[in-house]
Amino acid sequence: MAGKNVFYAQSGGVTSVINASALGVFDEVAEHPSTFGAVYAGKNGIIGALKEELIDVSQMSSRERAGLLHTPAGAFGSCRYKLKDIEQQRAQYERLIDVFRAHEIGYFFYNGGGDSQDTAHKVSQLSETLGYPITCIGVPKTIDNDLPHTDCCPGFGSVAKYVATSIREAALDVESMAASSTKVFILEVMGRHAGWIAGAAGLAQTNEHPAPQLILFPERVFDRGAVMAKIAEVVEQQGFCAIVASEGIRDAEGRFVAETGIRDAFGHAQLGGVAQRLAEMVRDDLGLKYHYAIADYLQRSARHIASQTDVDQAYALGRHAVRLAQSGENAVMPTIVRTQDSPYTYTLGHVPLASVANIERPMPEAFISEDGFSITEAARTYFAPLIEGEAFPPFHNGLPDYVRVQYHLVKPKLAPFSV
Amino acid sequence: MAGKNVFYAQSGGVTSVINASALGVFDEVAEHPSTFGAVYAGKNGIIGALKEELIDVSQMSSRERAGLLHTPAGAFGSCRYKLKDIEQQRAQYERLIDVFRAHEIGYFFYNGGGDSQDTAHKVSQLSETLGYPITCIGVPKTIDNDLPHTDCCPGFGSVAKYVATSIREAALDVESMAASSTKVFILEVMGRHAGWIAGAAGLAQTNEHPAPQLILFPERVFDRGAVMAKIAEVVEQQGFCAIVASEGIRDAEGRFVAETGIRDAFGHAQLGGVAQRLAEMVRDDLGLKYHYAIADYLQRSARHIASQTDVDQAYALGRHAVRLAQSGENAVMPTIVRTQDSPYTYTLGHVPLASVANIERPMPEAFISEDGFSITEAARTYFAPLIEGEAFPPFHNGLPDYVRVQYHLVKPKLAPFSV
Repeated sequence: MAGKNVFYAQSGGVTSVINASALGVFDEVAEHPSTFGAVYAGKNGIIGALKEELIDVSQMSSRERAGLLHTPAGAFGSCRYKLKDIEQQRAQYERLIDVFRAHEIGYFFYNGGGDSQDTAHKVSQLSETLGYPITCIGVPKTIDNDLPHTDCCPGFGSVAKYVATSIREAALDVESMAASSTKVFILEVMGRHAGWIAGAAGLAQTNEHPAPQLILFPERVFDRGAVMAKIAEVVEQQGFCAIVASEGIRDAEGRFVAETGIRDAFGHAQLGGVAQRLAEMVRDDLGLKYHYAIADYLQRSARHIASQTDVDQAYALGRHAVRLAQSGENAVMPTIVRTQDSPYTYTLGHVPLASVANIERPMPEAFISEDGFSITEAARTYFAPLIEGEAFPPFHNGLPDYVRVQYHLVKPKLAPFSV
Repeated sequence: MAGKNVFYAQSGGVTSVINASALGVFDEVAEHPSTFGAVYAGKNGIIGALKEELIDVSQMSSRERAGLLHTPAGAFGSCRYKLKDIEQQRAQYERLIDVFRAHEIGYFFYNGGGDSQDTAHKVSQLSETLGYPITCIGVPKTIDNDLPHTDCCPGFGSVAKYVATSIREAALDVESMAASSTKVFILEVMGRHAGWIAGAAGLAQTNEHPAPQLILFPERVFDRGAVMAKIAEVVEQQGFCAIVASEGIRDAEGRFVAETGIRDAFGHAQLGGVAQRLAEMVRDDLGLKYHYAIADYLQRSARHIASQTDVDQAYALGRHAVRLAQSGENAVMPTIVRTQDSPYTYTLGHVPLASVANIERPMPEAFISEDGFSITEAARTYFAPLIEGEAFPPFHNGLPDYVRVQYHLVKPKLAPFSV
């Protein structure tokens, strides 16, 4: 007799390897047919559960299923939707239970970051608070790398590899033209609260490659004078300066550097990011020719340059989540436990969701150099293995052969519910 | 007895495969020791010749030399420096001859785009105008793909592969989040005068992949109302809209959309590109959540996702340039001659520099769809083979193992000359 059915959902900002975790979940579930029944994926995350939009994973083609390992973004749709406390959103929780009961769902795998682990934790309390028995396992994922108790978070290593590769490439470009053209280049990267991504870009700097010569971390107060002086010094000494700037840097008053406060003739606020503001300062304060790039979503969807380590871990954590459920664990999240730096070795562990939910892991202070503009050896030791290995996707007609899953929805059994 | 020495230089905006052309030149020269003597590369292009800063190619390490095939940007330095007519800059031309004579240079290989081929053409006239015998061959290179008489230009295919890959990846990201987050994504790409790069991004759109749903070409007048209406329609029908915008789009008055004219409180002009302006319009006119990325130099230095076709052609054209010189040709540029679309076949040809210099090849009108927002089958047939094949570089410690050439300069024989 098959066991209870499985619900899997993707949550929050997607990554280039979250689908690898989905495949890990599906593959492991398939190995325990006496424990697990059918697998349903939420269309657009938890919203799919609330709206009873359940994707029947068994209806996926073999190409679609295999493609999960090498396709970026959320193959089943993700969402930015955070469940409040049960007291505040009782109707939502009761709806979840209605849907779970209607589809005999006994296992809930929620693939997301800090907010999502909080949701997973709340769902795990349903058996206690609302009397519905469910096994709830979080599957970690976030390019922000800010989940506690795990060596790293799936998605981060691939962003790290992308930004380090990109700044190395662009810096070679700038250096080769600097004598008569652009001398300052700025790459804006994600990381509003912590400098994990900006810091990882520092791996591009080696004995051979001087760039990036400057990293701007959200952990450090942005001091315009000091930064411009440093840029001028680097350009004077090396002929060019390649900068990686976190979108989250703030000045001494706590204001985001990216905030412009400028309005056009119609009173509309002007957009603009950190890179643009820095470029304006370089122009106004130093009179140097600049260029800037904003990687934006390109960095977190760049599956074509994904880290093999990252893909492996994403897949392994999906599998491990299911093994935890199989072995009777509940309300936990599997983790990566580093056992050695070089060569990198790790084991899989797990921690209670209660210890993860809503806790942001900051980047260690010891990762930032004394002058605040580069990374330390400790940081290199930590970051280096996470970008190891190239997990190139298959290509077709010169482009990555990513899949777009056709959704076969399970027939609804309940009345509609609006979210 | 060895022949005359060889001068090679890189010119204009660099690409991810221009060094492959350099290697092609060096490898072919090495096969004809009775024709060619030593090989010198100009430090920072033609400026290196004027300043008598000649890099001794024979002093390169084997790692550096082999690395040219997979290292982006200009390994010897490039420049934006256009020689005027001989009447206007006689001192420069005489200096060139002095340097050539001092170092017994009889062959001049100039690796660049339209402006550079013009310079090469002028240098080729030196024997006639100033009595110094020199064989002058242009080696084509430009991501702009706007040199005439060649099927394509080395550098372009790799940018095309990068932008098509990037918009496919980012679009998957946006689509998976669109139900509750960003609905419009804009990728700004290079191409101030022609839509070659923007058009090539259209290859990402297939039966399976709907994006990019909108391409904005510099060949079409930007009509805000029409573009916003199209975006609204796509979002309504498909839930999201991924846009590729050329930096060069202009409105009906001929103004660049990227031009802001906005100044901050201190009267400083605000920067901002096309992507930002479009995002502001999406926000103001449609009220939709947006994100944008600016690829900037990332696109032209992305050797990690280079097209094998592009690398092969860049190398082959370098070799062919030398063969042309060897066989007695002068004042010519080697070209790619397409002989079949699919499977793609081509031969190497050549044309007089006089027919190339200062002539920009526009993208054919027939490449743009009737509504002006996508590409035609004719465009696909042209673009498709140029992105074929993956020429991944070697990786070391998780990052592309690019080389930075240490310059061993030939001892100067002349007095300094300021450029």
